[in-house]
Amino acid sequence: MRRLSVHLLPSLVAPESLAESTAVVIDVLRATTTAVCALAHGARAVVPCLEVDEARQRAAILGSNVLLGGERGGRAIAGFDLGNSPTEYLPDVVRGKTIVFTTTNGTRALERCRHARRILLGAFVNYSALCDALRGETAIDLVCAGTDQHVTREDVLFAGAVVDDLLQKGEPIELNDQALLAVDAWRGACEAFRQPGALAERLRHSRGGKNLLEIGQERDIDIAAEIDRHTIVPQLDREMWEIRASLER
Amino acid sequence: MRRLSVHLLPSLVAPESLAESTAVVIDVLRATTTAVCALAHGARAVVPCLEVDEARQRAAILGSNVLLGGERGGRAIAGFDLGNSPTEYLPDVVRGKTIVFTTTNGTRALERCRHARRILLGAFVNYSALCDALRGETAIDLVCAGTDQHVTREDVLFAGAVVDDLLQKGEPIELNDQALLAVDAWRGACEAFRQPGALAERLRHSRGGKNLLEIGQERDIDIAAEIDRHTIVPQLDREMWEIRASLER
Repeated sequence: MRRLSVHLLPSLVAPESLAESTAVVIDVLRATTTAVCALAHGARAVVPCLEVDEARQRAAILGSNVLLGGERGGRAIAGFDLGNSPTEYLPDVVRGKTIVFTTTNGTRALERCRHARRILLGAFVNYSALCDALRGETAIDLVCAGTDQHVTREDVLFAGAVVDDLLQKGEPIELNDQALLAVDAWRGACEAFRQPGALAERLRHSRGGKNLLEIGQERDIDIAAEIDRHTIVPQLDREMWEIRASLER
Repeated sequence: MRRLSVHLLPSLVAPESLAESTAVVIDVLRATTTAVCALAHGARAVVPCLEVDEARQRAAILGSNVLLGGERGGRAIAGFDLGNSPTEYLPDVVRGKTIVFTTTNGTRALERCRHARRILLGAFVNYSALCDALRGETAIDLVCAGTDQHVTREDVLFAGAVVDDLLQKGEPIELNDQALLAVDAWRGACEAFRQPGALAERLRHSRGGKNLLEIGQERDIDIAAEIDRHTIVPQLDREMWEIRASLER
Protein backbone atom coordinates (compact mmCIF):
# COMPACT_ATOMS: atom_id res chain seq x y z
CA MET A 1 0.00 0.00 0.00
CA ARG A 2 1.06 3.57 -0.59
CA ARG A 3 2.28 5.55 2.38
CA LEU A 4 1.79 9.27 2.96
CA SER A 5 3.06 11.11 6.03
CA VAL A 6 2.60 14.75 6.94
CA HIS A 7 5.12 16.45 9.22
CA LEU A 8 3.82 19.64 10.82
CA LEU A 9 7.36 20.92 11.35
CA PRO A 10 10.73 19.97 9.84
CA SER A 11 11.95 18.95 13.31
CA LEU A 12 9.23 16.27 13.45
CA VAL A 13 10.71 14.31 10.52
CA ALA A 14 13.80 12.09 10.83
CA PRO A 15 15.94 12.86 7.73
CA GLU A 16 17.08 9.24 7.32
CA SER A 17 13.44 8.08 7.18
CA LEU A 18 13.05 9.82 3.80
CA ALA A 19 15.56 7.70 1.83
CA GLU A 20 12.91 5.94 -0.29
CA SER A 21 10.49 8.83 -0.33
CA THR A 22 9.31 11.75 -2.43
CA ALA A 23 9.42 14.72 -0.09
CA VAL A 24 7.42 17.89 -0.66
CA VAL A 25 8.58 21.09 1.04
CA ILE A 26 5.69 23.44 1.88
CA ASP A 27 6.17 27.09 2.86
CA VAL A 28 3.03 28.79 1.56
CA LEU A 29 3.85 32.20 3.09
CA ARG A 30 6.01 32.70 1.19
CA ALA A 31 9.12 30.75 0.09
CA THR A 32 7.57 27.94 -1.94
CA THR A 33 4.89 30.24 -3.40
CA THR A 34 7.59 32.66 -4.53
CA ALA A 35 9.81 29.88 -5.92
CA VAL A 36 6.90 28.51 -7.98
CA CYS A 37 6.13 32.00 -9.32
CA ALA A 38 9.79 32.71 -10.16
CA LEU A 39 10.22 29.45 -12.08
CA ALA A 40 6.82 29.73 -13.77
CA HIS A 41 7.88 33.20 -14.93
CA GLY A 42 10.97 31.81 -16.63
CA ALA A 43 13.75 31.89 -14.05
CA ARG A 44 16.35 29.25 -15.01
CA ALA A 45 16.78 28.02 -11.43
CA VAL A 46 16.42 28.93 -7.77
CA VAL A 47 19.47 28.22 -5.62
CA PRO A 48 18.51 27.88 -1.94
CA CYS A 49 21.00 29.13 0.66
CA LEU A 50 20.69 29.03 4.44
CA GLU A 51 22.78 32.11 5.22
CA VAL A 52 22.98 35.60 3.74
CA ASP A 53 26.78 35.47 3.37
CA GLU A 54 26.58 32.08 1.71
CA ALA A 55 24.07 33.52 -0.76
CA ARG A 56 26.37 36.45 -1.57
CA GLN A 57 29.32 34.10 -2.12
CA ARG A 58 27.31 31.74 -4.27
CA ALA A 59 26.04 34.64 -6.40
CA ALA A 60 29.61 35.93 -6.84
CA ILE A 61 30.76 32.49 -8.05
CA LEU A 62 27.85 32.13 -10.47
CA GLY A 63 28.66 35.52 -11.99
CA SER A 64 26.31 36.97 -14.59
CA ASN A 65 22.59 36.38 -15.05
CA VAL A 66 22.19 36.05 -11.31
CA LEU A 67 19.75 37.78 -8.97
CA LEU A 68 19.99 37.74 -5.19
CA GLY A 69 16.65 37.25 -3.45
CA GLY A 70 15.25 36.47 -0.04
CA GLU A 71 14.33 37.84 3.36
CA ARG A 72 15.15 38.09 7.00
CA GLY A 73 12.21 38.64 9.35
CA GLY A 74 9.98 39.05 6.29
CA ARG A 75 11.97 42.03 5.01
CA ALA A 76 14.36 42.51 2.09
CA ILE A 77 18.10 42.08 2.71
CA ALA A 78 20.48 45.01 2.16
CA GLY A 79 22.21 44.80 -1.22
CA PHE A 80 19.89 42.09 -2.54
CA ASP A 81 18.07 42.52 -5.86
CA LEU A 82 14.76 41.07 -4.68
CA GLY A 83 12.85 40.31 -1.47
CA ASN A 84 10.64 37.28 -0.83
CA SER A 85 7.42 38.63 -2.35
CA PRO A 86 6.02 36.78 -5.37
CA THR A 87 5.00 40.19 -6.77
CA GLU A 88 8.66 40.99 -7.40
CA TYR A 89 9.42 37.89 -9.46
CA LEU A 90 7.85 39.11 -12.71
CA PRO A 91 8.66 37.57 -16.11
CA ASP A 92 10.58 40.64 -17.27
CA VAL A 93 12.70 40.55 -14.14
CA VAL A 94 13.50 36.86 -13.74
CA ARG A 95 13.43 35.34 -17.26
CA GLY A 96 16.61 33.32 -17.86
CA LYS A 97 18.07 34.30 -14.50
CA THR A 98 19.43 32.17 -11.69
CA ILE A 99 17.92 33.31 -8.40
CA VAL A 100 20.17 32.80 -5.40
CA PHE A 101 17.59 32.69 -2.66
CA THR A 102 17.81 32.71 1.12
CA THR A 103 14.89 32.35 3.51
CA THR A 104 15.12 30.87 6.98
CA ASN A 105 12.26 28.42 7.26
CA GLY A 106 11.91 27.18 3.69
CA THR A 107 15.61 26.53 3.25
CA ARG A 108 15.85 24.73 6.59
CA ALA A 109 12.97 22.47 5.57
CA LEU A 110 14.76 21.67 2.31
CA GLU A 111 17.94 20.75 4.20
CA ARG A 112 15.90 18.44 6.41
CA CYS A 113 14.71 16.58 3.28
CA ARG A 114 18.20 16.14 1.81
CA HIS A 115 18.09 12.31 1.96
CA ALA A 116 14.79 12.00 0.08
CA ARG A 117 14.78 10.22 -3.27
CA ARG A 118 13.04 13.20 -4.84
CA ILE A 119 12.39 16.68 -3.41
CA LEU A 120 9.52 18.81 -4.74
CA LEU A 121 8.12 22.21 -3.74
CA GLY A 122 4.42 22.80 -3.19
CA ALA A 123 2.03 25.68 -2.49
CA PHE A 124 -1.56 26.51 -3.37
CA VAL A 125 -0.29 28.21 -6.56
CA ASN A 126 0.80 24.82 -8.01
CA TYR A 127 -1.67 22.57 -6.17
CA SER A 128 -3.06 20.40 -9.00
CA ALA A 129 0.27 20.10 -10.79
CA LEU A 130 1.88 18.87 -7.57
CA CYS A 131 -0.94 16.38 -6.91
CA ASP A 132 -0.52 15.02 -10.44
CA ALA A 133 3.22 14.67 -9.90
CA LEU A 134 2.56 12.63 -6.74
CA ARG A 135 -0.01 10.34 -8.35
CA GLY A 136 2.36 7.44 -9.06
CA GLU A 137 4.48 7.72 -5.92
CA THR A 138 4.39 4.97 -3.28
CA ALA A 139 6.04 6.84 -0.39
CA ILE A 140 5.31 10.52 0.11
CA ASP A 141 6.34 12.89 2.91
CA LEU A 142 4.81 16.38 3.07
CA VAL A 143 7.06 18.59 5.19
CA CYS A 144 5.57 21.84 6.51
CA ALA A 145 8.21 24.52 6.98
CA GLY A 146 6.50 26.37 9.85
CA THR A 147 7.93 29.63 11.17
CA ASP A 148 10.75 29.63 13.70
CA GLN A 149 9.75 26.16 14.96
CA HIS A 150 6.08 27.12 15.24
CA VAL A 151 3.45 25.18 13.30
CA THR A 152 1.79 27.43 10.70
CA ARG A 153 -1.80 26.93 9.69
CA GLU A 154 -1.41 27.72 6.00
CA ASP A 155 1.22 25.01 5.47
CA VAL A 156 -0.86 22.36 7.26
CA LEU A 157 -4.04 23.34 5.37
CA PHE A 158 -2.15 22.94 2.11
CA ALA A 159 -0.78 19.55 3.19
CA GLY A 160 -4.37 18.55 4.02
CA ALA A 161 -5.54 19.71 0.59
CA VAL A 162 -2.94 17.44 -1.05
CA VAL A 163 -3.93 14.46 1.11
CA ASP A 164 -7.59 15.12 0.26
CA ASP A 165 -6.86 15.11 -3.48
CA LEU A 166 -4.83 11.91 -3.35
CA LEU A 167 -7.45 10.14 -1.22
CA GLN A 168 -10.21 11.09 -3.61
CA LYS A 169 -8.43 10.11 -6.79
CA GLY A 170 -6.26 7.15 -5.91
CA GLU A 171 -6.09 3.75 -4.29
CA PRO A 172 -5.95 3.42 -0.46
CA ILE A 173 -3.10 5.24 1.26
CA GLU A 174 -1.71 4.59 4.72
CA LEU A 175 -1.70 7.96 6.51
CA ASN A 176 0.06 9.00 9.70
CA ASP A 177 -1.95 10.84 12.38
CA GLN A 178 -0.62 14.22 11.25
CA ALA A 179 -1.94 13.50 7.74
CA LEU A 180 -5.34 12.57 9.17
CA LEU A 181 -5.38 15.81 11.14
CA ALA A 182 -4.28 17.88 8.15
CA VAL A 183 -7.06 16.49 5.97
CA ASP A 184 -9.61 16.94 8.78
CA ALA A 185 -8.44 20.56 9.10
CA TRP A 186 -8.62 21.16 5.35
CA ARG A 187 -12.12 19.70 5.16
CA GLY A 188 -13.17 21.63 8.26
CA ALA A 189 -11.95 24.83 6.65
CA CYS A 190 -13.33 23.88 3.22
CA GLU A 191 -16.86 25.05 3.83
CA ALA A 192 -15.60 28.62 3.67
CA PHE A 193 -13.64 28.05 0.48
CA ARG A 194 -16.70 27.83 -1.70
CA GLN A 195 -16.79 31.62 -1.60
CA PRO A 196 -14.12 33.48 -3.58
CA GLY A 197 -11.49 35.05 -1.38
CA ALA A 198 -12.23 32.76 1.54
CA LEU A 199 -8.89 30.94 1.47
CA ALA A 200 -7.05 34.27 1.46
CA GLU A 201 -9.17 35.30 4.43
CA ARG A 202 -8.08 32.19 6.34
CA LEU A 203 -4.45 32.86 5.48
CA ARG A 204 -4.75 36.43 6.80
CA HIS A 205 -5.60 34.98 10.22
CA SER A 206 -2.63 32.62 10.34
CA ARG A 207 0.57 33.58 12.07
CA GLY A 208 2.37 34.06 8.74
CA GLY A 209 -0.54 36.08 7.36
CA LYS A 210 -0.55 38.43 10.33
CA ASN A 211 3.19 38.96 9.93
CA LEU A 212 2.67 39.92 6.27
CA LEU A 213 -0.15 42.32 7.11
CA GLU A 214 2.14 43.99 9.66
CA ILE A 215 4.81 44.64 7.04
CA GLY A 216 2.27 45.80 4.42
CA GLN A 217 2.52 42.73 2.15
CA GLU A 218 -1.19 41.89 1.97
CA ARG A 219 -1.04 41.37 -1.79
CA ASP A 220 1.29 38.37 -1.20
CA ILE A 221 -1.46 36.62 0.75
CA ASP A 222 -3.88 36.99 -2.16
CA ILE A 223 -1.34 35.53 -4.57
CA ALA A 224 -0.49 32.67 -2.17
CA ALA A 225 -4.21 31.80 -2.04
CA GLU A 226 -4.62 31.61 -5.84
CA ILE A 227 -5.09 27.89 -6.30
CA ASP A 228 -3.52 26.57 -9.54
CA ARG A 229 -2.13 29.93 -10.64
CA HIS A 230 0.75 27.95 -12.19
CA THR A 231 1.28 24.47 -13.57
CA ILE A 232 4.92 23.76 -12.75
CA VAL A 233 6.37 21.63 -9.97
CA PRO A 234 9.77 22.81 -8.75
CA GLN A 235 12.20 19.98 -8.03
CA LEU A 236 15.54 20.18 -6.24
CA ASP A 237 18.52 18.87 -8.21
CA ARG A 238 20.66 17.74 -5.30
CA GLU A 239 23.88 17.36 -7.31
CA MET A 240 23.68 20.97 -8.47
CA TRP A 241 21.77 22.07 -5.33
CA GLU A 242 19.39 24.11 -7.40
CA ILE A 243 15.65 24.02 -7.91
CA ARG A 244 14.26 23.87 -11.43
CA ALA A 245 10.80 23.64 -12.96
CA SER A 246 10.81 19.92 -13.68
CA LEU A 247 7.29 19.38 -14.82
CA GLU A 248 4.92 21.24 -17.06
CA ARG A 249 1.46 19.72 -17.43
CA MET B 1 -8.22 39.45 25.44
CA ARG B 2 -8.10 35.83 26.48
CA ARG B 3 -5.34 33.66 25.04
CA LEU B 4 -5.61 29.98 24.20
CA SER B 5 -2.75 27.94 22.76
CA VAL B 6 -2.75 24.33 21.66
CA HIS B 7 0.50 22.36 21.67
CA LEU B 8 0.39 19.25 19.51
CA LEU B 9 3.23 17.67 21.49
CA PRO B 10 4.74 18.39 24.92
CA SER B 11 8.06 19.20 23.24
CA LEU B 12 6.38 22.09 21.38
CA VAL B 13 5.63 24.02 24.58
CA ALA B 14 8.26 25.97 26.52
CA PRO B 15 7.66 25.13 30.23
CA GLU B 16 8.48 28.67 31.40
CA SER B 17 5.83 30.11 29.07
CA LEU B 18 3.11 28.52 31.22
CA ALA B 19 3.77 30.50 34.43
CA GLU B 20 0.53 32.53 34.22
CA SER B 21 -1.49 29.84 32.54
CA THR B 22 -4.00 27.11 33.19
CA ALA B 23 -2.57 24.05 31.46
CA VAL B 24 -4.66 21.07 30.42
CA VAL B 25 -2.92 17.74 29.85
CA ILE B 26 -4.63 15.60 27.22
CA ASP B 27 -3.92 11.89 26.71
CA VAL B 28 -7.21 10.49 25.46
CA LEU B 29 -5.85 6.96 24.81
CA ARG B 30 -5.61 6.37 27.69
CA ALA B 31 -3.95 8.09 30.64
CA THR B 32 -6.24 11.08 31.17
CA THR B 33 -9.36 9.06 30.34
CA THR B 34 -8.37 6.47 32.93
CA ALA B 35 -7.48 9.11 35.55
CA VAL B 36 -10.88 10.77 35.10
CA CYS B 37 -12.65 7.40 35.46
CA ALA B 38 -10.61 6.43 38.54
CA LEU B 39 -11.34 9.72 40.33
CA ALA B 40 -14.99 9.76 39.25
CA HIS B 41 -15.29 6.27 40.71
CA GLY B 42 -14.08 7.46 44.09
CA ALA B 43 -10.31 7.07 44.12
CA ARG B 44 -8.86 9.54 46.66
CA ALA B 45 -6.02 10.62 44.38
CA VAL B 46 -3.86 9.62 41.42
CA VAL B 47 -0.11 10.02 41.96
CA PRO B 48 1.71 10.31 38.62
CA CYS B 49 5.21 8.79 38.38
CA LEU B 50 7.55 8.78 35.42
CA GLU B 51 9.38 5.52 36.19
CA VAL B 52 8.23 2.07 37.30
CA ASP B 53 10.75 1.91 40.17
CA GLU B 54 9.74 5.38 41.34
CA ALA B 55 6.11 4.21 41.40
CA ARG B 56 7.01 1.13 43.48
CA GLN B 57 8.97 3.28 45.98
CA ARG B 58 6.20 5.84 46.22
CA ALA B 59 3.61 3.12 46.84
CA ALA B 60 5.80 1.59 49.56
CA ILE B 61 6.09 4.97 51.32
CA LEU B 62 2.36 5.62 51.10
CA GLY B 63 1.64 2.22 52.68
CA SER B 64 -1.96 1.04 52.92
CA ASN B 65 -4.93 1.95 50.73
CA VAL B 66 -2.65 2.18 47.72
CA LEU B 67 -2.96 0.56 44.32
CA LEU B 68 -0.19 0.46 41.71
CA GLY B 69 -1.41 1.16 38.19
CA GLY B 70 -0.03 1.94 34.77
CA GLU B 71 1.49 0.52 31.63
CA ARG B 72 4.54 0.08 29.50
CA GLY B 73 3.97 -0.31 25.76
CA GLY B 74 0.23 -0.44 26.47
CA ARG B 75 0.57 -3.53 28.68
CA ALA B 76 0.29 -4.10 32.44
CA ILE B 77 3.46 -3.96 34.55
CA ALA B 78 4.60 -7.05 36.48
CA GLY B 79 3.56 -6.87 40.15
CA PHE B 80 1.16 -3.94 39.59
CA ASP B 81 -2.45 -4.11 40.76
CA LEU B 82 -3.92 -2.43 37.67
CA GLY B 83 -3.05 -1.65 34.06
CA ASN B 84 -4.01 1.49 32.15
CA SER B 85 -7.48 0.46 31.05
CA PRO B 86 -10.43 2.52 32.36
CA THR B 87 -12.39 -0.75 32.59
CA GLU B 88 -10.21 -1.81 35.52
CA TYR B 89 -10.83 1.29 37.64
CA LEU B 90 -14.28 0.30 38.89
CA PRO B 91 -15.89 1.87 41.99
CA ASP B 92 -15.52 -1.30 44.06
CA VAL B 93 -11.84 -1.46 43.21
CA VAL B 94 -10.70 2.14 43.58
CA ARG B 95 -13.00 3.77 46.15
CA GLY B 96 -10.95 5.57 48.81
CA LYS B 97 -7.67 4.34 47.32
CA THR B 98 -4.62 6.28 46.25
CA ILE B 99 -3.56 5.15 42.78
CA VAL B 100 0.17 5.40 42.13
CA PHE B 101 0.17 5.60 38.37
CA THR B 102 2.92 5.45 35.77
CA THR B 103 2.44 5.94 32.03
CA THR B 104 5.09 7.26 29.70
CA ASN B 105 3.41 9.92 27.61
CA GLY B 106 0.83 11.31 30.01
CA THR B 107 3.28 11.67 32.88
CA ARG B 108 5.86 13.33 30.66
CA ALA B 109 3.25 15.84 29.50
CA LEU B 110 2.40 16.62 33.14
CA GLU B 111 6.07 17.24 33.94
CA ARG B 112 6.28 19.61 31.01
CA CYS B 113 3.44 21.68 32.54
CA ARG B 114 5.00 21.88 36.01
CA HIS B 115 5.33 25.69 35.94
CA ALA B 116 1.69 26.32 35.08
CA ARG B 117 -0.46 28.21 37.58
CA ARG B 118 -3.04 25.43 37.45
CA ILE B 119 -2.82 21.97 35.86
CA LEU B 120 -5.98 20.12 34.81
CA LEU B 121 -6.59 16.82 33.02
CA GLY B 122 -8.96 16.49 30.08
CA ALA B 123 -10.45 13.79 27.87
CA PHE B 124 -13.74 13.28 26.03
CA VAL B 125 -15.12 11.59 29.17
CA ASN B 126 -15.05 14.92 31.07
CA TYR B 127 -15.42 17.30 28.11
CA SER B 128 -18.18 19.67 29.30
CA ALA B 129 -16.94 19.77 32.90
CA LEU B 130 -13.48 20.76 31.67
CA CYS B 131 -14.87 23.43 29.33
CA ASP B 132 -16.87 24.88 32.25
CA ALA B 133 -13.74 24.91 34.41
CA LEU B 134 -11.92 26.88 31.70
CA ARG B 135 -14.70 29.42 31.21
CA GLY B 136 -13.22 32.13 33.43
CA GLU B 137 -9.56 31.60 32.57
CA THR B 138 -7.63 34.26 30.66
CA ALA B 139 -4.61 32.18 29.61
CA ILE B 140 -5.09 28.55 28.63
CA ASP B 141 -2.62 26.02 27.23
CA LEU B 142 -3.90 22.67 25.95
CA VAL B 143 -0.99 20.22 25.87
CA CYS B 144 -1.45 17.05 23.80
CA ALA B 145 0.58 14.14 25.17
CA GLY B 146 1.13 12.35 21.86
CA THR B 147 2.83 8.94 21.77
CA ASP B 148 6.59 8.62 21.83
CA GLN B 149 7.00 12.11 20.33
CA HIS B 150 4.45 11.45 17.59
CA VAL B 151 1.37 13.65 17.27
CA THR B 152 -1.79 11.61 17.99
CA ARG B 153 -5.04 12.42 16.29
CA GLU B 154 -7.35 11.76 19.25
CA ASP B 155 -5.57 14.25 21.50
CA VAL B 156 -5.66 17.00 18.86
CA LEU B 157 -9.34 16.33 18.04
CA PHE B 158 -10.15 16.70 21.72
CA ALA B 159 -8.14 19.94 21.96
CA GLY B 160 -10.12 21.18 18.94
CA ALA B 161 -13.40 20.24 20.62
CA VAL B 162 -12.43 22.35 23.66
CA VAL B 163 -11.45 25.31 21.48
CA ASP B 164 -14.74 24.97 19.60
CA ASP B 165 -16.76 25.05 22.83
CA LEU B 166 -14.93 28.08 24.23
CA LEU B 167 -15.25 29.97 20.92
CA GLN B 168 -18.96 29.33 20.77
CA LYS B 169 -19.73 30.26 24.34
CA GLY B 170 -17.30 33.00 25.28
CA GLU B 171 -15.84 36.32 24.31
CA PRO B 172 -13.12 36.53 21.61
CA ILE B 173 -10.02 34.44 22.24
CA GLU B 174 -6.60 34.86 20.67
CA LEU B 175 -5.64 31.45 19.27
CA ASN B 176 -2.27 30.16 18.09
CA ASP B 177 -2.07 28.39 14.71
CA GLN B 178 -2.13 24.96 16.34
CA ALA B 179 -5.42 25.90 18.04
CA LEU B 180 -6.85 27.05 14.69
CA LEU B 181 -5.79 23.75 13.13
CA ALA B 182 -7.19 21.70 16.00
CA VAL B 183 -10.58 23.38 15.74
CA ASP B 184 -10.58 23.04 11.95
CA ALA B 185 -9.80 19.33 12.39
CA TRP B 186 -12.52 18.87 15.00
CA ARG B 187 -15.08 20.61 12.80
CA GLY B 188 -13.88 18.66 9.74
CA ALA B 189 -14.35 15.44 11.68
CA CYS B 190 -17.61 16.63 13.28
CA GLU B 191 -19.87 15.72 10.41
CA ALA B 192 -19.32 12.06 11.27
CA PHE B 193 -20.05 12.57 14.97
CA ARG B 194 -23.75 13.13 14.47
CA GLN B 195 -24.04 9.35 14.23
CA PRO B 196 -23.59 7.32 17.41
CA GLY B 197 -20.31 5.46 17.55
CA ALA B 198 -18.67 7.74 14.99
CA LEU B 199 -16.15 9.27 17.36
CA ALA B 200 -15.07 5.80 18.52
CA GLU B 201 -14.69 4.85 14.87
CA ARG B 202 -12.33 7.81 14.33
CA LEU B 203 -10.32 6.89 17.39
CA ARG B 204 -9.92 3.32 16.12
CA HIS B 205 -8.10 4.70 13.08
CA SER B 206 -5.67 6.81 15.08
CA ARG B 207 -2.23 5.55 15.97
CA GLY B 208 -3.22 5.04 19.61
CA GLY B 209 -6.45 3.32 18.59
CA LYS B 210 -4.61 0.87 16.34
CA ASN B 211 -2.22 0.05 19.18
CA LEU B 212 -5.16 -0.74 21.47
CA LEU B 213 -6.83 -2.94 18.85
CA GLU B 214 -3.57 -4.86 18.51
CA ILE B 215 -3.46 -5.64 22.23
CA GLY B 216 -7.18 -6.50 22.38
CA GLN B 217 -8.30 -3.39 24.29
CA GLU B 218 -11.04 -2.26 21.91
CA ARG B 219 -13.47 -1.60 24.80
CA ASP B 220 -11.13 1.16 26.02
CA ILE B 221 -11.68 3.07 22.78
CA ASP B 222 -15.45 2.97 23.25
CA ILE B 223 -15.11 4.33 26.77
CA ALA B 224 -12.64 7.02 25.70
CA ALA B 225 -15.18 8.16 23.08
CA GLU B 226 -18.05 8.51 25.59
CA ILE B 227 -18.40 12.28 25.72
CA ASP B 228 -19.37 13.57 29.20
CA ARG B 229 -19.38 10.15 30.86
CA HIS B 230 -18.17 11.96 34.00
CA THR B 231 -18.45 15.44 35.47
CA ILE B 232 -15.19 15.82 37.39
CA VAL B 233 -12.06 17.74 36.41
CA PRO B 234 -8.87 16.26 37.81
CA GLN B 235 -6.38 18.86 39.00
CA LEU B 236 -2.74 18.35 39.96
CA ASP B 237 -1.81 19.48 43.46
CA ARG B 238 1.82 20.36 42.84
CA GLU B 239 2.81 20.53 46.51
CA MET B 240 1.59 17.00 47.13
CA TRP B 241 2.27 15.94 43.50
CA GLU B 242 -1.05 14.16 43.32
CA ILE B 243 -4.11 14.57 41.12
CA ARG B 244 -7.51 14.95 42.79
CA ALA B 245 -11.05 15.50 41.54
CA SER B 246 -11.23 19.20 42.20
CA LEU B 247 -14.53 20.09 40.67
CA GLU B 248 -17.94 18.51 40.64
CA ARG B 249 -20.58 20.30 38.61
